[in-house]
Amino acid sequence: MKITENPYVSNVAKVIQGSKTRYLTELASQYGDAISFAVGEPDFTTPGHIIEAAAKKLLEGETHYAPNPGIYELRQAIAEEYNQKHPKQRLGAANVVVTNGTQEANLLAMMAVLNPGDEVLVPTPNYISYIPQLLMLHVKAVFVETYAENGYEITAEAIEGAVTPRTRAVMLNSPCNPTGTVLSRGTLEKVIAVAKRHKLAILSDETYSEIVYEPFTSILDVMELDESLFYCSGFSKSYAMTGWRLGYTITTEETALAIRYLHENSTSCSNTALQYGALEAVRNGAEDVEYMRRKYEDRRNLICSLLDEIRPLSYVLPKGAFYVWVDIRKTGLSSMDFADRLLKETHTVIAPGTAFGEAGEGFIRLSYATSEEKIEEGLKRIGNFVKTLR
Amino acid sequence: MKITENPYVSNVAKVIQGSKTRYLTELASQYGDAISFAVGEPDFTTPGHIIEAAAKKLLEGETHYAPNPGIYELRQAIAEEYNQKHPKQRLGAANVVVTNGTQEANLLAMMAVLNPGDEVLVPTPNYISYIPQLLMLHVKAVFVETYAENGYEITAEAIEGAVTPRTRAVMLNSPCNPTGTVLSRGTLEKVIAVAKRHKLAILSDETYSEIVYEPFTSILDVMELDESLFYCSGFSKSYAMTGWRLGYTITTEETALAIRYLHENSTSCSNTALQYGALEAVRNGAEDVEYMRRKYEDRRNLICSLLDEIRPLSYVLPKGAFYVWVDIRKTGLSSMDFADRLLKETHTVIAPGTAFGEAGEGFIRLSYATSEEKIEEGLKRIGNFVKTLR
Repeated sequence: MKITENPYVSNVAKVIQGSKTRYLTELASQYGDAISFAVGEPDFTTPGHIIEAAAKKLLEGETHYAPNPGIYELRQAIAEEYNQKHPKQRLGAANVVVTNGTQEANLLAMMAVLNPGDEVLVPTPNYISYIPQLLMLHVKAVFVETYAENGYEITAEAIEGAVTPRTRAVMLNSPCNPTGTVLSRGTLEKVIAVAKRHKLAILSDETYSEIVYEPFTSILDVMELDESLFYCSGFSKSYAMTGWRLGYTITTEETALAIRYLHENSTSCSNTALQYGALEAVRNGAEDVEYMRRKYEDRRNLICSLLDEIRPLSYVLPKGAFYVWVDIRKTGLSSMDFADRLLKETHTVIAPGTAFGEAGEGFIRLSYATSEEKIEEGLKRIGNFVKTLR
Repeated sequence: MKITENPYVSNVAKVIQGSKTRYLTELASQYGDAISFAVGEPDFTTPGHIIEAAAKKLLEGETHYAPNPGIYELRQAIAEEYNQKHPKQRLGAANVVVTNGTQEANLLAMMAVLNPGDEVLVPTPNYISYIPQLLMLHVKAVFVETYAENGYEITAEAIEGAVTPRTRAVMLNSPCNPTGTVLSRGTLEKVIAVAKRHKLAILSDETYSEIVYEPFTSILDVMELDESLFYCSGFSKSYAMTGWRLGYTITTEETALAIRYLHENSTSCSNTALQYGALEAVRNGAEDVEYMRRKYEDRRNLICSLLDEIRPLSYVLPKGAFYVWVDIRKTGLSSMDFADRLLKETHTVIAPGTAFGEAGEGFIRLSYATSEEKIEEGLKRIGNFVKTLR
């Protein structure tokens, strides 16, 4: 029975679909020579010392529930790391709730802020899961488009122009998936001012904050933590720990308690032994982060130099994350046609821009969290494919 | 700033509170000689071969995202195990979605079924988290009380009597936390008939199904899986794997796809390496389950024989899970007063019945997932405390 015909399932279950990117990735698995630029995860394995720290705790029998908000040492270590990086902050363990990845952190932060029927401002193109998450909460996403001319940075004017009496929050994602855009200090200051003026909560997802190619300004460098700020990040991207499912929220202590209760009733707690791997990551993972960051930077430079040769594609140099957002409008193909044909004709997978909202029509996202060999071969294929379109 | 005064947080975040039991447990940590009957988790460490299987995969570098619905081998192994135990079923991997514990399984199943404003029938006393979970989804819980005279089994008549045009689903929890009640085949058949007649979905949480003290009838023994059934269980209780955060839903394939998408957008996937521990548990954990089950049975017999000596407390012999639900009404104390005074005067923690819904007033829940020594010492303290009340 088709899900849409099943009388027992909710409207939300009928509406939320799987990601197009994943669908294409599954299709690609039939080709032995497939190359994928679609996957949003580091190709690196988690650094060995992090794995070993977790395996040790597991073998020692750390198999019971963790405290709901996460093990104390980990929360304390996260707080200290943020205090060191962001001198404006005075965080303690009580500000941190450890979640099942940044994905759950974002969902809990949204749940902590938004009531059904509220409006939330979403700069777009946007991370895929924000929209289904807002659907789950019966909240209306009001999209605020970003443009190449502005490096895909949202402007405070655009935010202000979209505010209505129902607006309750603004979402920020810097560095941005899919565009690789990093918000400047000036933009952050102005957006915060708009949020303050209209009493909007700020949902800030900085999960890619360690993967940046020029000095990065976090929202935590611009404002002191207060009741309006709901900050989310995680271990997946910086430390190549996607399969560990560990992220966190940072909020005021009182709000952290509320988020803890939401977390407790969603997933109880995060897995116990693996949190000790995250602790090792925070304490001794800085060199690994820098090693991988440089690799991503080399790959960014490589993929962009190869894209420079492929007319009529264009892009804005990404300043963070591991994605390049490519304008394919001059090819005359829609995002989905481009993706479908590229896969069929060259066995190469990319993420169609429309996966990231309607504003993504005419764009594709290439993830360069893959080897330089694959980048070279894949971009050759894309170049040849684009030539056939002329 | 108090959460209730914070203008940026949602109504749900303002309403959902931490569990009273956890609060008492935290209070108890100040006493060196505290004994707790409050914790809902096995005192056993996960069996060694399960830990080793997971640690091996972790050390081999299984650190990337798992497939959203869980690793294929695990889903297949779960399906095969259920087919073997429940000959009515013809399950495959596509019926199973691996979740972050039964907690997330329950939440996703509710989300897959219920729309805001719907009513759902909840036999009560009930598992603590059902109510906040329904609050998160803006669904109305309609409580259907169960009584000692009937062994706390829900009746089909009571379910039928509570149905309104807004009723969309009925929840079942067998064995039941907190009462230890197991639904009989006859009750299940009648409740299923009522659900069919009123086109209600059935949300069935059988997370304690392996911890039973007489032959157990699962809902999967009584009905073939169809669109109306949303079955949830997990590894936490049977295999002593609470800290692993691994559970699952079993539904029709189409519904499983919808639940997978909800899961994908809630927590992405469950942790990868640890799923191989669960695979080892399903494949080779039967003896461990039986060993622990016998231990729980011995403890149940011990705690109940000790309770028999404590007048005027009474209870119904629990047939499953590791809780005994004790009627304290004749002491004249409220549940919370009993819990508070017992803690203060004897350093012994129990869960006040009101943690499990209003129908729990006048009751306490004792978890016997603890050592026989602690059961003996703790029940001595409870006996002495009750004596002081006369």
